[in-house]
Amino acid sequence: MDKITSVKNDRIKTWKKLSSKKGREKQSAYILESWHLVNEALNANQNVKVILTTKKQFDIHKNELVNYIGELIEINDEIAKHLGSTITPQGIFAVVDIPNKDIINKDNLNGAWLLLDNIQDPGNIGTMVRTADAAGMNGVIFGNGTSNQFNPKVLRAMQGSQFHLKIIEGNLQYWIDILKNKNYPVYGSELNENAVTYSSVAPTDNFALIMGNEGNGMQNELLKITDKNLYIPIKGNAESLNVAIASGILMFHLKK
Amino acid sequence: MDKITSVKNDRIKTWKKLSSKKGREKQSAYILESWHLVNEALNANQNVKVILTTKKQFDIHKNELVNYIGELIEINDEIAKHLGSTITPQGIFAVVDIPNKDIINKDNLNGAWLLLDNIQDPGNIGTMVRTADAAGMNGVIFGNGTSNQFNPKVLRAMQGSQFHLKIIEGNLQYWIDILKNKNYPVYGSELNENAVTYSSVAPTDNFALIMGNEGNGMQNELLKITDKNLYIPIKGNAESLNVAIASGILMFHLKK
Repeated sequence: MDKITSVKNDRIKTWKKLSSKKGREKQSAYILESWHLVNEALNANQNVKVILTTKKQFDIHKNELVNYIGELIEINDEIAKHLGSTITPQGIFAVVDIPNKDIINKDNLNGAWLLLDNIQDPGNIGTMVRTADAAGMNGVIFGNGTSNQFNPKVLRAMQGSQFHLKIIEGNLQYWIDILKNKNYPVYGSELNENAVTYSSVAPTDNFALIMGNEGNGMQNELLKITDKNLYIPIKGNAESLNVAIASGILMFHLKK
Repeated sequence: MDKITSVKNDRIKTWKKLSSKKGREKQSAYILESWHLVNEALNANQNVKVILTTKKQFDIHKNELVNYIGELIEINDEIAKHLGSTITPQGIFAVVDIPNKDIINKDNLNGAWLLLDNIQDPGNIGTMVRTADAAGMNGVIFGNGTSNQFNPKVLRAMQGSQFHLKIIEGNLQYWIDILKNKNYPVYGSELNENAVTYSSVAPTDNFALIMGNEGNGMQNELLKITDKNLYIPIKGNAESLNVAIASGILMFHLKK
């Protein structure tokens, strides 16, 4: 196993750039952090190019890494801290190729979809993907303006669920048209007592649910092209629900 | 309006200590940040002793502050940054007395209660209180070991919902006994397919729901004394749900 001991090493500098969107686009790769996520990527047959690990983490996981055929590099705690996005990184990372975007077949969209319209907070986004996975959704579509799926904080909150369902990035209007053409009901969500109370909608297998921006809700143009806009009645005095909580309540109700 | 211009001012030093539990206990006070929360505290007749505000925030809110009779102090951006818990603080703070703990009357616990068993993440805790408010719960009981209700990050995530419902800190076993004596059903929650599927339980007005630690779940001793332990079926491949999401799904189902 090769060893890198300085944060000034050229390859470390290159991988450090993967924490920015620009760096990820340039290298067409992203960086995953912690054994749980590295292991999920390996199990999901992602193209893991390099695993960077402290001696300690290698010793813990060496038996699970016997089948890994990519490059394996030992790093020290200082480099782990430099590459990590938490205060105390575990000490194991993977550099992974960003998958080809063209793998989604538009004729094979069976199931339920969660659409993210300008969601900003990485923790919310990651939690929504994890919750979509638990609710049995088919995939999540990241609309333009929503934080990037390879952002380190989004990756951390997804906890590997991105490997269990389909992830699409794109124009929501385009995808809504496709789903409507397949006769899927498309549900918007809004904080509006005149909208349809969610619990009155019967659970189904195939549908699309759109969740909007934390502060401003869904774009008006999208609210207009949905089949129904759903509302979660607020019984107490809270002004609103957190968007990830709202998406959890809706998906667990709507998905048959 | 008095003016403080240095972070080295003795009173600023004293208030800065309110970001720690020790400081809050010593002064029996806590600090609230942002106009939304300051305003919620005023509307809820909390004992707001001092409002600290930049000139800019004062100019925006001076009409809303005409009835405020406590001390009002102008601070600058540097002090706001020093006292704030975010990267770009809004510039308005309140120093508030911690309310007397003995205000809860044990004979008047009507309604539904959320019990927090060793919940650690301040964002989760705050979101759970906000969600409990929206679901129409009567109150939240912070068990020993759960992060403190006056922690700045908990305060931020609660978004003022702490003023809309009852908050108790204490020993969960003690409160479970009291609620059981009133014949309230007490529901635990666990990641166990052999537990009771939550959707099979009929909604009611009065009940207690216990949510457990993010990593380890509820304490075993508590799981044993509940009436039923509830499970949210995971349909996809996620290992678990975030605890705040799970609490949202359960409360919105269980509360009539």
